[in-house]
Amino acid sequence: MSKAKPRKRHQLRPTTIEPHRTAAAGSVIIRQGDTHVLCTASIASEVPRWLLDPQTGEPKRGWVTAEYNMMPGSTPDRKRRGPDSRGTEIQRLIGRVLRAAVDLDKMPGVAITCDCDVMLADGGTRTASITGAFVALSQAIAAARKAGLIKGNPIKGPVAAVSVGVVDGQIYTDLDYPLDVRAEVDMNVAMNHQGQFIEVQGTGEQGVFSREQLDELLDAATKGIRQLMKVQRKALS
Amino acid sequence: MSKAKPRKRHQLRPTTIEPHRTAAAGSVIIRQGDTHVLCTASIASEVPRWLLDPQTGEPKRGWVTAEYNMMPGSTPDRKRRGPDSRGTEIQRLIGRVLRAAVDLDKMPGVAITCDCDVMLADGGTRTASITGAFVALSQAIAAARKAGLIKGNPIKGPVAAVSVGVVDGQIYTDLDYPLDVRAEVDMNVAMNHQGQFIEVQGTGEQGVFSREQLDELLDAATKGIRQLMKVQRKALS
Amino acid sequence: MSKAKPRKRHQLRPTTIEPHRTAAAGSVIIRQGDTHVLCTASIASEVPRWLLDPQTGEPKRGWVTAEYNMMPGSTPDRKRRGPDSRGTEIQRLIGRVLRAAVDLDKMPGVAITCDCDVMLADGGTRTASITGAFVALSQAIAAARKAGLIKGNPIKGPVAAVSVGVVDGQIYTDLDYPLDVRAEVDMNVAMNHQGQFIEVQGTGEQGVFSREQLDELLDAATKGIRQLMKVQRKALS
Amino acid sequence: MSKAKPRKRHQLRPTTIEPHRTAAAGSVIIRQGDTHVLCTASIASEVPRWLLDPQTGEPKRGWVTAEYNMMPGSTPDRKRRGPDSRGTEIQRLIGRVLRAAVDLDKMPGVAITCDCDVMLADGGTRTASITGAFVALSQAIAAARKAGLIKGNPIKGPVAAVSVGVVDGQIYTDLDYPLDVRAEVDMNVAMNHQGQFIEVQGTGEQGVFSREQLDELLDAATKGIRQLMKVQRKALS
Amino acid sequence: MSKAKPRKRHQLRPTTIEPHRTAAAGSVIIRQGDTHVLCTASIASEVPRWLLDPQTGEPKRGWVTAEYNMMPGSTPDRKRRGPDSRGTEIQRLIGRVLRAAVDLDKMPGVAITCDCDVMLADGGTRTASITGAFVALSQAIAAARKAGLIKGNPIKGPVAAVSVGVVDGQIYTDLDYPLDVRAEVDMNVAMNHQGQFIEVQGTGEQGVFSREQLDELLDAATKGIRQLMKVQRKALS
Amino acid sequence: MSKAKPRKRHQLRPTTIEPHRTAAAGSVIIRQGDTHVLCTASIASEVPRWLLDPQTGEPKRGWVTAEYNMMPGSTPDRKRRGPDSRGTEIQRLIGRVLRAAVDLDKMPGVAITCDCDVMLADGGTRTASITGAFVALSQAIAAARKAGLIKGNPIKGPVAAVSVGVVDGQIYTDLDYPLDVRAEVDMNVAMNHQGQFIEVQGTGEQGVFSREQLDELLDAATKGIRQLMKVQRKALS
Repeated sequence: MSKAKPRKRHQLRPTTIEPHRTAAAGSVIIRQGDTHVLCTASIASEVPRWLLDPQTGEPKRGWVTAEYNMMPGSTPDRKRRGPDSRGTEIQRLIGRVLRAAVDLDKMPGVAITCDCDVMLADGGTRTASITGAFVALSQAIAAARKAGLIKGNPIKGPVAAVSVGVVDGQIYTDLDYPLDVRAEVDMNVAMNHQGQFIEVQGTGEQGVFSREQLDELLDAATKGIRQLMKVQRKALS
Repeated sequence: MSKAKPRKRHQLRPTTIEPHRTAAAGSVIIRQGDTHVLCTASIASEVPRWLLDPQTGEPKRGWVTAEYNMMPGSTPDRKRRGPDSRGTEIQRLIGRVLRAAVDLDKMPGVAITCDCDVMLADGGTRTASITGAFVALSQAIAAARKAGLIKGNPIKGPVAAVSVGVVDGQIYTDLDYPLDVRAEVDMNVAMNHQGQFIEVQGTGEQGVFSREQLDELLDAATKGIRQLMKVQRKALS
Repeated sequence: MSKAKPRKRHQLRPTTIEPHRTAAAGSVIIRQGDTHVLCTASIASEVPRWLLDPQTGEPKRGWVTAEYNMMPGSTPDRKRRGPDSRGTEIQRLIGRVLRAAVDLDKMPGVAITCDCDVMLADGGTRTASITGAFVALSQAIAAARKAGLIKGNPIKGPVAAVSVGVVDGQIYTDLDYPLDVRAEVDMNVAMNHQGQFIEVQGTGEQGVFSREQLDELLDAATKGIRQLMKVQRKALS
Repeated sequence: MSKAKPRKRHQLRPTTIEPHRTAAAGSVIIRQGDTHVLCTASIASEVPRWLLDPQTGEPKRGWVTAEYNMMPGSTPDRKRRGPDSRGTEIQRLIGRVLRAAVDLDKMPGVAITCDCDVMLADGGTRTASITGAFVALSQAIAAARKAGLIKGNPIKGPVAAVSVGVVDGQIYTDLDYPLDVRAEVDMNVAMNHQGQFIEVQGTGEQGVFSREQLDELLDAATKGIRQLMKVQRKALS
Repeated sequence: MSKAKPRKRHQLRPTTIEPHRTAAAGSVIIRQGDTHVLCTASIASEVPRWLLDPQTGEPKRGWVTAEYNMMPGSTPDRKRRGPDSRGTEIQRLIGRVLRAAVDLDKMPGVAITCDCDVMLADGGTRTASITGAFVALSQAIAAARKAGLIKGNPIKGPVAAVSVGVVDGQIYTDLDYPLDVRAEVDMNVAMNHQGQFIEVQGTGEQGVFSREQLDELLDAATKGIRQLMKVQRKALS
Repeated sequence: MSKAKPRKRHQLRPTTIEPHRTAAAGSVIIRQGDTHVLCTASIASEVPRWLLDPQTGEPKRGWVTAEYNMMPGSTPDRKRRGPDSRGTEIQRLIGRVLRAAVDLDKMPGVAITCDCDVMLADGGTRTASITGAFVALSQAIAAARKAGLIKGNPIKGPVAAVSVGVVDGQIYTDLDYPLDVRAEVDMNVAMNHQGQFIEVQGTGEQGVFSREQLDELLDAATKGIRQLMKVQRKALS
């Protein structure tokens, strides 16, 4: 699907995060090569019941969750609608990483859902979703602060994610689909702005990986994420 | 949601149909005021079994179907994912109208699914879906002809649709959401390029309509559709 | 399936609406040729929560809804049980038309469900359902008034529906199944007693229709509905 | 619901089995007091795949199955549509008893579904369903023989069922709903024409029953079933 | 599957009921030949809403329910997970019998779920489930009394169940799978300690049974259950 | 739930893997402290269709998959039956790791399902499932070789898994539930016998982790897995 120019092994695909008009409080399209994801962040108009303290009836904290969806036209073979087990696993990952970016105690009663709808899929959709959704989430939180729903600033700092992997024995950063299908090892890494890990998910279904490779993979991911955070900052400024 | 400038009663909202990059054979975004719909048309990679003649095993005709979906960020109150009865009804309508645009006998064994994903909803999403999906369908059929999947030209001519209605006793064309909620009568009309009707769906849940009003509504729809077909032609040229 | 005697093009099939014993507050079988529908109207024994004003806890208005179902024995090829998209669309139509017959503000807290179970299907099941369900609804409202659940008379007037269509280029009223499968255009029309339209649903999947044909179709429907209302009146007297 | 005249303890409610027009091969309404069930028997138009011998591709035997459904208007509180665990259990029972009435080897490749739709429920719906469905099944088998689908006569003899129970320490036959809710013990018995048992299902959720009571219950059931078989014979002659 | 030594026709398979460590309040494994069932009884940590009196908000009675499940490894052909109609019917039976063992009025607000997970299936799983689940239920009630959730003793006495059947015209007790598949008649009987019946479910899908056979079957069941109650007593002492 | 004696931070809980009688080809219970999992491995009795080469109709390779389930009695608050998103994610992980242990090309046409049913849950159920399921899988493969279904030895070597985590800033191995709920970082690691990684899943929902901590976590996991492989070897010898 992708006609990307020859990239160096650790060169990210060209990445942009641009605002996209929807009715949600936060809304961007992240394009990382031929992977395009619409990320929207919607604030619930009512306080969800389960955020309320059963004793006082007052909300004690907020919540951030995510949904991930491949749109029908995102793949050459039309993707059938509806939840599947892969999507379920991915949206749990996205939700966990986004929650690591915010202090939920500082946004009592505010529930934000980040929807990641993949418009074009060329590998790395889950990591692009994280990187883009953080921006949409930040926009939504800014809107909630403006509207007086949130008092302080619950954002602890940016989070972003990248995929790295081993293909033909070599380490690559930001795998597109052709690389991904050939990869012996596939690893998704999410980090914060202080270079700390939030999630490390390395899988070797078609191979295994040594401690040395793991170290190299983490080095590559760390560098890639640092660059992605620049794109995020630009989008948020 | 919409801050459209004061429109005249029979003035269409500003409408554009632009190609949008996805992996589908046909793909556009139609924007009609603040109603934005991503319309993609995907060609099935295998001949669906039910298109085969049980005797000969050969495909006798083709098929065109549609799916309609409101994306979570399309409404200020986040739209929950998943099928609902309104969507089911709408996608059956879209499918019927699109099939009226093609000669299914001229595309044996080719099944095309038109997906209409509403990115921003401000009224008239079903009619915008039809108008946009016809363009995506045309692109997909052109691609199928290029690939040799279809020999002749199965397209009989363009189809487009518009909503008209009665608000405060007056006839309006192309209702946005604020008009729609106030409308006594709501009518969706789909026509072909010869000014013939494919679908007329008039509903008076909050009112009823006389034969005279029906005539006026159809006049307004006919004019509106003629203009929308110009936008389609421009998009396809 | 049908052995109807040769009918004239605008002659209704023989139609009767007779009471049928069930446990519901209203209950009739409408027979329109070989289309037989059991229509029952059940009053909810508790006020549904969503009819209550969240502030006062008092019900502000009532509700009327419909369910449509083809029974397994209604077709020569046994109809499998369970909801399908066609049925969903039909029951939404029936509900809208029935609600146009009543002033929901005059029946606060009363929710009535009209069930239309097709016992024998020979075309025109949705319009027969509307015509029959109005009678069952009227019976249920009369029972609710007697029981003191409703004070005044919420019924604005009768509603009925008929199908009309174009077969071999000619206009027909009240299509049975053999006509329906050959029809180029199929239109369902629901009207009130003042000759005003509630719903007009014209579909030309196998053809299109001109403005002239549309006019003729509406004329035929208007006449057919007038006759059906006589049958309704007889059933209710 | 029921205003039955005072019955003797072992007197059956007035029972009729009458043909009812549907599109199914067999179709009756059984009325046992205020319990009314529409029983239809539909012959599958294609040989179900699982009835075929995987080696030869030829059908070896036939099949009879049942579905049980309470219609929405069958109870004063509207019965919601859709399968439930009680209905599942009942339709398994009906199917087993009906299969005991036929020699499945004598109807190779023929699959018959008996649908029991309760139109009015006043106790004993599952036993009335069995008694009525046998008649519909017989009609369908006669039709299949006439059509040449079945060669010999697969019917071994009639089957019928009745409920018996213990209420206030006394044995009753053919319990209506008011008796049923007060019953300590509830027993459903299905027999063939030779007085042999096909199913005995005795339940003492609100009580237990002694061997003596069990004997009395079976005596009562045997007598009741003999009378029901007279009604069946009359319906089939 | 089973290599049981030749048993006499009315000899029970070797039966043991042993405690098994889980987190539930009651937990045993019953082994009856090669039928092994894990029975656990869990006390709901909150009072279920439907046990509360709508007026006072106080619980009036308790509840006991059951779930039955075949584990994937219980059969040589792996059993697929998920509910099926056979399991639904069985768990309703188990629940009814267990409720006959307790006075629900004496355990207000306490809801106990008895889970019967078949680890190895060689016939008679439903009756073994009943016999084992009574022991787990007794353990759970003892725990609830100790914890002060229940004041008096709600247990009326033991309940147990056994299968009996007719194979090649002869009566057998405690059918294993090889006998079960050959059985003309299959009967499950549940009794209390006073020799009274709680449930009698006799089915003759591949045959019918006379009154004499029914009497013999009940005699055999009565004897079998008496022995099973000894095993229960031992397990509870 | 657990009253484990004070463990050192990197001391595994007492772990045993014992055969357990079921009808599956492989079957063990792994007990790791108070986490007990029944692992069974079932060989499909028919070659699944999707393992066949569409051209030749011959199977080209085999398949190993896993299902994970918490039994109702595994937790003090009864676990409701049925799939959930957490379980879906876990069984995908187990399946991937087990497939890394075998050469699927060496077992053409053989499909094995490994079921992991948690009988008692005290943290680390997914890693215990992996460690135990490998033993059950090995038993099943041995059985398949004995039965001639598999020619060579598809097992590449053992795989096992352990959880490690950061609690109060300190690294722990094999977290039980009380540790798990307090953990800032939770990591599951699966390795092969050569000390290579198959899966590394580190999550910091309640915290983040530095590169140094990640290194320590991996060291701890490596040591723990080596010990677990000794338990596996003993179980398989």
